[in-house]
Amino acid sequence: MSNNKVISVIGGNKCSDETGKIAQEIGKNIAKLGAILVCGGLGGVMEAAAKGAKENGGLTVGILPGERKTDANPYIDIAIPTGLGLARNTLVVKAADLIVALPGEYGTLSEISFALIFKKPVINLSNWDISGTIKVNTIEEAVNLIKKELKNK
Amino acid sequence: MSNNKVISVIGGNKCSDETGKIAQEIGKNIAKLGAILVCGGLGGVMEAAAKGAKENGGLTVGILPGERKTDANPYIDIAIPTGLGLARNTLVVKAADLIVALPGEYGTLSEISFALIFKKPVINLSNWDISGTIKVNTIEEAVNLIKKELKNK
Amino acid sequence: MSNNKVISVIGGNKCSDETGKIAQEIGKNIAKLGAILVCGGLGGVMEAAAKGAKENGGLTVGILPGERKTDANPYIDIAIPTGLGLARNTLVVKAADLIVALPGEYGTLSEISFALIFKKPVINLSNWDISGTIKVNTIEEAVNLIKKELKNK
Amino acid sequence: MSNNKVISVIGGNKCSDETGKIAQEIGKNIAKLGAILVCGGLGGVMEAAAKGAKENGGLTVGILPGERKTDANPYIDIAIPTGLGLARNTLVVKAADLIVALPGEYGTLSEISFALIFKKPVINLSNWDISGTIKVNTIEEAVNLIKKELKNK
Repeated sequence: MSNNKVISVIGGNKCSDETGKIAQEIGKNIAKLGAILVCGGLGGVMEAAAKGAKENGGLTVGILPGERKTDANPYIDIAIPTGLGLARNTLVVKAADLIVALPGEYGTLSEISFALIFKKPVINLSNWDISGTIKVNTIEEAVNLIKKELKNK
Repeated sequence: MSNNKVISVIGGNKCSDETGKIAQEIGKNIAKLGAILVCGGLGGVMEAAAKGAKENGGLTVGILPGERKTDANPYIDIAIPTGLGLARNTLVVKAADLIVALPGEYGTLSEISFALIFKKPVINLSNWDISGTIKVNTIEEAVNLIKKELKNK
Repeated sequence: MSNNKVISVIGGNKCSDETGKIAQEIGKNIAKLGAILVCGGLGGVMEAAAKGAKENGGLTVGILPGERKTDANPYIDIAIPTGLGLARNTLVVKAADLIVALPGEYGTLSEISFALIFKKPVINLSNWDISGTIKVNTIEEAVNLIKKELKNK
Repeated sequence: MSNNKVISVIGGNKCSDETGKIAQEIGKNIAKLGAILVCGGLGGVMEAAAKGAKENGGLTVGILPGERKTDANPYIDIAIPTGLGLARNTLVVKAADLIVALPGEYGTLSEISFALIFKKPVINLSNWDISGTIKVNTIEEAVNLIKKELKNK
């Protein structure tokens, strides 16, 4: 397999403007680091992160719960429609070398859980305070950690 | 479909003696209420709960992550080997009318998350304090709630 | 795990009266042999086989493609709603010690394929003539083979 | 979602030299048409097709049955480790606008079945003669059909 690094961004299907800006900035940084962005392919955090990556020359993959590629947001290059419903959350996490968690609901919590089971680093900017994640408070901290973690992979 | 009520018991693949006793007691009560017990089919909480149900004439189903029926603990009547790995956690939750959560690790947390996404009642005796679950402190409280919830189904 | 034998009956979601009668007769024989009947839980062959089993005191499991237990036909004791869509076809096959194939379309063909991959015996009363299956022409032949195969398990 | 066309190449995990050459040639043509190649990510037909695409500037995605990205063959740009076992066969098919089938065993047959259920065109260079597929005899015929089908998408 090629040596591409993959970062999954997880978070709510809807999000505040502020969270959207953070997601977009994280996406931008993932693209600038030359990593592939994976997400759940839908709206909110997933769309904002994909937008940030696409606007900066990145490659984006959306692993969708439904059957149709057209469910994907407009910034997804490669849509993987799984038809698995929420069981697809495991795939979003498994595809990644590291995960960046942004605010979200129980779906995000399930993805954080799977990431920790699979022993993937979770850089945590989300509302879920779960032990085992790497809690950060700023985009800058998150980006520095992404850089550090990518070097170890 | 027949009108059988289904209760899923979730919790760690390993557990303390004390947690095992609680799981067994919950399983016993599920059987006495005439409900079917579903679990992940492996050890720890899953085995103790299935034991409690079997010893009281109940029917037990184990939805396994692996490919082999023989992975199931000895108290499982019907083993469903999924070969889906941890994506099977969604099935354990979807099969149920209500969920009883006992102590466990991130797998248990993922199941609590899915239960809340699917809007299933979660009677929570676990170490995870997640809003949306019904937190209880004693077996008695849990059993009373199970009875109450089953009436509404 | 308990020593229950499991037989999966696969075939179309719609079927002719004649195929329905064969499915029902197979279901009846599965119940009489004390085996658990697994199927996809929906109509046609699945419903007729489950009916035959239920009317003869058998236990029936329906592994459903959708999210809702209520999708199951009325003869299913234990409904497992997977939400996996057609990926659930792998589970119908994996759960079984042996498979009886009745007429069906491409879904049935996918299940025959998986059964052969998993090296499960396929007693083939279907329209698909696939090498590796055990082709039979009558219910009697099928039932004799079921008995013989169960002894080897 | 971007307007990328996706073609899945299915076939055996092992293959003859001759089949490998055909797979490589199909992969080359997929790349030249600007489409993304999806496959199961492993050896045989999957590896030869991915090689043909990569050597001609294409983008390749491998949807793997196992848990590890490192299971992917060396010509896969984006590895999606599903951990779903053979249930991943549904994903290989769902991701595509059209499918090219090369010689393979029962796994290939399951993928042809799913493609027909999902009403995707199957350009069939395989050993399986299944009604509903578009049977062709030469690479040239296959490539002409790929071009024609892509125009309709």
